[in-house]
Amino acid sequence: MKQRLASYLPFLTWAKHYDRTAAAKDGLAALIVTLMLIPQSLAYAMLAGLPPVTGLYASMLPLIAYTLFGTSRTLAVGPVAVVSLMTAAALGPLFAVGSAEYAGAAMLLAMLSGAVLLAMAVLRLGFLANFLSHPVISGFISASGILIALGQLKHILGIPVTGENALELAHGLILGLPSTHLPTFIIGTLSLLFLFLVRSRLGGWLQKLGMSVHIAGTLTKIGPVVALLLAIAAVGGLGLADTGVRVVGAVPRGLPSLSLPTLDLELAMALLPAAVLISLVGFVESVSVAQTLAAKRREQIEPNQELVALGGANIAAAMSGGFPVTGGFARSVVNFDAGAQTPLAGALTAAGIGITVLLFTPLFHNLPHAVLAATIIVALLSLVDLAALKRTWRYSRQDAAAMAATMLGVLLVGVESGIMLGVGLSLLLFLWRTSQPHVAVVGQLPGSEHFRNIERFAVVQSPKVLSVRVDESLYFPNARYLEDRIAELIGRYPQAEHLVLMCPGVNLIDASALESLEAISARLHTAGIQLHLSEVKGPVMDRLRRSDFLEHFGGQVFISQYEALRALDPQTTHHALERQRDHLCSKEKAG
Amino acid sequence: MKQRLASYLPFLTWAKHYDRTAAAKDGLAALIVTLMLIPQSLAYAMLAGLPPVTGLYASMLPLIAYTLFGTSRTLAVGPVAVVSLMTAAALGPLFAVGSAEYAGAAMLLAMLSGAVLLAMAVLRLGFLANFLSHPVISGFISASGILIALGQLKHILGIPVTGENALELAHGLILGLPSTHLPTFIIGTLSLLFLFLVRSRLGGWLQKLGMSVHIAGTLTKIGPVVALLLAIAAVGGLGLADTGVRVVGAVPRGLPSLSLPTLDLELAMALLPAAVLISLVGFVESVSVAQTLAAKRREQIEPNQELVALGGANIAAAMSGGFPVTGGFARSVVNFDAGAQTPLAGALTAAGIGITVLLFTPLFHNLPHAVLAATIIVALLSLVDLAALKRTWRYSRQDAAAMAATMLGVLLVGVESGIMLGVGLSLLLFLWRTSQPHVAVVGQLPGSEHFRNIERFAVVQSPKVLSVRVDESLYFPNARYLEDRIAELIGRYPQAEHLVLMCPGVNLIDASALESLEAISARLHTAGIQLHLSEVKGPVMDRLRRSDFLEHFGGQVFISQYEALRALDPQTTHHALERQRDHLCSKEKAG
Repeated sequence: MKQRLASYLPFLTWAKHYDRTAAAKDGLAALIVTLMLIPQSLAYAMLAGLPPVTGLYASMLPLIAYTLFGTSRTLAVGPVAVVSLMTAAALGPLFAVGSAEYAGAAMLLAMLSGAVLLAMAVLRLGFLANFLSHPVISGFISASGILIALGQLKHILGIPVTGENALELAHGLILGLPSTHLPTFIIGTLSLLFLFLVRSRLGGWLQKLGMSVHIAGTLTKIGPVVALLLAIAAVGGLGLADTGVRVVGAVPRGLPSLSLPTLDLELAMALLPAAVLISLVGFVESVSVAQTLAAKRREQIEPNQELVALGGANIAAAMSGGFPVTGGFARSVVNFDAGAQTPLAGALTAAGIGITVLLFTPLFHNLPHAVLAATIIVALLSLVDLAALKRTWRYSRQDAAAMAATMLGVLLVGVESGIMLGVGLSLLLFLWRTSQPHVAVVGQLPGSEHFRNIERFAVVQSPKVLSVRVDESLYFPNARYLEDRIAELIGRYPQAEHLVLMCPGVNLIDASALESLEAISARLHTAGIQLHLSEVKGPVMDRLRRSDFLEHFGGQVFISQYEALRALDPQTTHHALERQRDHLCSKEKAG
Repeated sequence: MKQRLASYLPFLTWAKHYDRTAAAKDGLAALIVTLMLIPQSLAYAMLAGLPPVTGLYASMLPLIAYTLFGTSRTLAVGPVAVVSLMTAAALGPLFAVGSAEYAGAAMLLAMLSGAVLLAMAVLRLGFLANFLSHPVISGFISASGILIALGQLKHILGIPVTGENALELAHGLILGLPSTHLPTFIIGTLSLLFLFLVRSRLGGWLQKLGMSVHIAGTLTKIGPVVALLLAIAAVGGLGLADTGVRVVGAVPRGLPSLSLPTLDLELAMALLPAAVLISLVGFVESVSVAQTLAAKRREQIEPNQELVALGGANIAAAMSGGFPVTGGFARSVVNFDAGAQTPLAGALTAAGIGITVLLFTPLFHNLPHAVLAATIIVALLSLVDLAALKRTWRYSRQDAAAMAATMLGVLLVGVESGIMLGVGLSLLLFLWRTSQPHVAVVGQLPGSEHFRNIERFAVVQSPKVLSVRVDESLYFPNARYLEDRIAELIGRYPQAEHLVLMCPGVNLIDASALESLEAISARLHTAGIQLHLSEVKGPVMDRLRRSDFLEHFGGQVFISQYEALRALDPQTTHHALERQRDHLCSKEKAG
């Protein structure tokens, strides 16, 4: 009972041994993450099409929910780029950016996303996330990075551009180029330059000044907050807001009031597909980060409980005026590197954001959009990994095709279409591949009981017994294909009396394939050849026993291909074994 | 060149050796098939929602097209029940039955269906038909049979009933029962009784009278035409048409004029999904019949050329005022049994139908709909095989689920939805299954080099080497599952120093699974265990060599599990082999 409770509320486990050392480490990590999270959460809210302060709202209660329910000790939850992009993609076509309906729908989307995650936890459907294959996720993140960066360029140029895909955005940017707003452009370019230098050079410079790698690395992470402060000072000092530089403007001070999003059933149904995709993508991203970090410290995470924790975090986001959240990659790594010991670091980060909302929001009045856009661009471009496409192509053209389809889909159509296209293509290519399986004629490796492809190894073939290995489960897409291939093989081996189908690669024989096996057996009979099976796996054999195939096909099922050959053609098998026997017996005589 | 032409025009091959004997046999078969086809084509046209004479139109040119392009010597092409049902399902929601637009759309549907089949031939997409698994086809045909029979009962009762699915039809029939039209009901019931008796009893009676099985069987096939003539005589003699018995009415005499269907692009797009499904279902039905009959006479059919022939037949149907056609089961069997030698029997059947259209159409004026409905019901109910569901359930619950889903979909929603549901569920269940593969710990069968599941066989396990066999291709849906399972296994075998992943069932390792293997290898390293692979198939190995996995994972790839054990734990392997060696050497000493 107690154990069960602890598995639903993992904090009960670590809270028992919580001490001052852990608290000090968690506190330091929380401070650093807070400084990193402030610009990110403001920027990602803007990316999601929401008032920047919404990002801060989405960085309080959700973190506390994860502290209570999460199993990763170092995952940092909050607004992340791809999920914010997906939020904007889902809501953009329905409501005007900036309207109250838009903000309400964002809350509803977070609520739905939370509900989907909890439902997946209850129904144990976490495995669905596996259908987002590695190439699809990788392609999705790279393309999203490019799409987001393109979308943010308008803030750097200070021009209004709208567009759903990369082409529209690029077109809008080119058309708008002549009307670039110079002060905005200067702020944006300086921010970009500053952030790039901080990210790529600052660490090295600080180390040259004698700082430890660790401290230098940590300081570079709070570069964005420095950029924010500098920009706020510049805009305030020079009165740039009056020249037309877009700033965040008046931000309500104080914590958000708790409320439930209005449940508009029709809108909920319309948003559900987006909520499902956001949940899946968020879950995959979050769990991979959590697993990577857990492995480094020999800790474990429990994927199903992670669904609960992320579901709780999203419902908390919905109730506090936020939008969909998940575990973020960069932030979690910083949290880990800064020495976070327990999920309490997350709750302390939430407290830090709470203090910010209570005390510092007037500061943000003069914060220019351009510097937030620069924060996003610099953070995102590091995730773009176009070389992955080439690496994947070298390994597997099918995987590369799925990756390319995802990228093109995301860039040219939209984020959801891109993911669906990638997953759909991955599945289609797999099915297409299994529909024409590799079929090899095999022979015995001299001096062993092992059988391999006659085209790849110097093996001994029996003239009487045709040994055929099928490298695929036998199921409906390939059932008839097998019939054709075997018909063709018999033509090539007219002197064969037996055909042994070697089944180590057959993990399933479905009803359609069983019909095909019956047809094959009957056709072989008319040609004077007896069908046998070998190396049939336990689960497949169990199933065959439930049909009447084994009684009627007239052949035998051998435990191994070697046993089949020993029974059907002892002479050839004897020859192939001779060398081995000589070898063994001479060793015995010698010993 | 000549050979290539012959493969596109198969008649060039058989026409060379055509002689009088073949002509006599083809002529007799054509006569019998014509007598069977007249009532069927009239009835199936009615089933498709078209004037009965359309069925005759669809039984001329299409047969000639198949004679020219078909590779089966005995397939009888023409209107068939399931395709007619699918035609009605596609057109019913769009146009009023009996309208000129409906008939025009039927022609367009035949044209599209022909184009889809030809496109499949050119693009070599015939394998797509394999995705209609055996359980789905079987469930579809049974449910269609029930649905068609239910739909025809209104003609037997003489009441108007409309409905898209079984529930609506049953509801309409029950509501309409009180207004049953008595004369129609009597004709319908007598026809049903007559046809059932002819089908089930006539053969036996005729044999008792001294007729051969063959002739008796043939005579039962022309029972429907006798029923037609009797009904026409009764309606004409008793003036039943005036009492309200629905009859075919005035039928235009003469051959249909050749014309192309009006190409309405919007309508064509709307009909395309239906055309694709009709093509696939028609192709599967036709090819299975053709293959079954060809195997009986050691002939061969060429599936891709069959796509051309059926495509040509459908385009011919479209051009002569018909509707989609394909090879029919019952009719082809009759053609075969009656001794048809070449596809010329089909052309002769077309001539027979042509004579009927030219001379006998006035006869059909008094043909009651009720007797056509009885023809359909009796023909169709023999295709309903509900016991197949039970047989399939015993063999595989997943296949049975797909079959049941198809049946319920067809009965409760519609024919297209039923097929989509069945195919979709088949694929989902397969993917779900492969996402959690069977993983077995294996050991050596004493006295052999063969390794089997420790839970099923009395095998020898090495204490140092953990042998794990994965019974599935490693790809994205199961990549993370494998990580979890291996983590769990290491926990159970703390003393293991090596883990050999035995891959005879692994037919693919995709990019996602490669990432997982790298993660597994790294995690095993931290636990002090070295990963190795064994029995990796050629194509999988080729691909692994294109990645850098083999250089970095630190283990070896063994040709067989036996070789792996011999290298990693010679002592245990030696023990397991001892018995075999003793056996072999004692034989040598004895010999």
